[in-house]
Amino acid sequence: MKVVGVDLGGTTFTVGLVEEGKGVVKKVEDLTRVEEGFEKVTERLAQRINEVKDDAVAVGIGAPGSIVDGTVRFAPNFPGWIDVPLGKRISELTGLPVYVENDANAFALGEKWFGAGRGKEHIVALTLGTGVGGGVITHGILLKGYLGIGAELGHVIIQPNGPICGCGNYGCLETLASATAIVRMANEGRKKYPDSLIFKHEEVTAKIVMDAAREGDKLALKIRDRVVEALARAIAGFVHIFNPEVVIIGGGVARAGDVLFKPLKEKVTEFLMPSFVGTFEIVRSPLLENSGILGAASVALEELEWR
Amino acid sequence: MKVVGVDLGGTTFTVGLVEEGKGVVKKVEDLTRVEEGFEKVTERLAQRINEVKDDAVAVGIGAPGSIVDGTVRFAPNFPGWIDVPLGKRISELTGLPVYVENDANAFALGEKWFGAGRGKEHIVALTLGTGVGGGVITHGILLKGYLGIGAELGHVIIQPNGPICGCGNYGCLETLASATAIVRMANEGRKKYPDSLIFKHEEVTAKIVMDAAREGDKLALKIRDRVVEALARAIAGFVHIFNPEVVIIGGGVARAGDVLFKPLKEKVTEFLMPSFVGTFEIVRSPLLENSGILGAASVALEELEWR
Repeated sequence: MKVVGVDLGGTTFTVGLVEEGKGVVKKVEDLTRVEEGFEKVTERLAQRINEVKDDAVAVGIGAPGSIVDGTVRFAPNFPGWIDVPLGKRISELTGLPVYVENDANAFALGEKWFGAGRGKEHIVALTLGTGVGGGVITHGILLKGYLGIGAELGHVIIQPNGPICGCGNYGCLETLASATAIVRMANEGRKKYPDSLIFKHEEVTAKIVMDAAREGDKLALKIRDRVVEALARAIAGFVHIFNPEVVIIGGGVARAGDVLFKPLKEKVTEFLMPSFVGTFEIVRSPLLENSGILGAASVALEELEWR
Repeated sequence: MKVVGVDLGGTTFTVGLVEEGKGVVKKVEDLTRVEEGFEKVTERLAQRINEVKDDAVAVGIGAPGSIVDGTVRFAPNFPGWIDVPLGKRISELTGLPVYVENDANAFALGEKWFGAGRGKEHIVALTLGTGVGGGVITHGILLKGYLGIGAELGHVIIQPNGPICGCGNYGCLETLASATAIVRMANEGRKKYPDSLIFKHEEVTAKIVMDAAREGDKLALKIRDRVVEALARAIAGFVHIFNPEVVIIGGGVARAGDVLFKPLKEKVTEFLMPSFVGTFEIVRSPLLENSGILGAASVALEELEWR
């Protein structure tokens, strides 16, 4: 079976033809140009889908923000997209059934169908990017909740008096373990550590901080340790709640690799109840640059499976 | 359909005949006498079940501790009960199929079948007693996790530098909102508030503290506020994760009523992301003294429904 996966971002979108059991067999990328408005963006999106769709039977879309029944309720990076019928419109323009899901949920489904969650029924997935996204599969089912807005794992409070979060709370996981948080912590440390390797670059990025940590840079290691502690506390909590087989971490920050994952695996154990030690694995998403398309495609595959 | 519900506690157990749609129609109570050992206790338990079973088609048991597939892996208040086949033994002695579940999970199921969760598919249930138990129903299914040990809602960390918990962590919800925590906080306040109403009684209990709070007692109100803050933070987190229709609170501490629930409902809003405000209710369990039997009976009803 073939489906089209659409990874819709605020700057670019990627459209891929995905074959079950095979992966991405064709893909195109284009600029989103959000400023052109919903009609123009969906037309260009549909055009790209029609180019690659071949004999695909459905389209899956992973989009940021709050998605309910194919409608984007609101999405921070898509100003003006309030209650827009994304799924319905794309379906009209492509002639295919279209299923839309929040990108973090799509990521979790992508891991179930193509990644580190294959054959597993209990998966906790985290994406560490600009924000922290969460997706949970429990007893084989994507956890969405009553109105489809659950699984906000990035907004569990880890440090009650921590940094303020965009959501209004203080010390959410997102304020301590996202790429944005890493950059913020680096800038906060500039005064005390002006000679840090981090500041040899024009612009501070999460990648630069993690690279510096790998080189043994003091400030970078401090930041790495704070990220690790926050993630370890959060993951222990999710493990106590969901008793998963696997915790899968993706997003830009996960590319740091061992410098993040090695101490993280050790630290988590500190916060686990004894009966949960050794019951799960923490792994880096193996899907890399195709995780967006594969996640989106999995949204469609998941729906088709249940028919 | 009739089933037998068994609420198995460390001190006493209660056995009830439960009719679907009707509730408890017959019940007996007896001492558990854990010290007599697994064989003796299960024999007495089976005897009581046989007395009330009538034409029941199954037995459900709610038991404390870690329960997997009818086996008690371990239970803090049942010394020596390690990997004992509770379900199998009771089935042999009663001739009925027996289903065993952790008592907090049973409580959640009881609310779904008989209480504040009727007709709902997304329920978060908390019991505030000696400890804090949690049960979650999401998309209509009891959340158990891979090994059946999930939904440990009492052990989410609310205050990273808070009191040490029996589980080894610091500042778990259980250390801040259980009856045990309330008594501990009262004793900690004795020096500073020797004239508190709380100490007019021989022994401090959670009920005495909550009664004193209702009278406007200063120390009692301080404790009440700390319990409310911890519960509000925890519930907001569960709401962000599960997007439930209802959060149901039971156990001894919930009997405090308005003095607890009124400030709790207000406080939760402080910690909610805007999109979750108004999406759920917080209610006190309506099942009262029968919640144990009805929960246990629901374990059986739930299993029979899926056949």
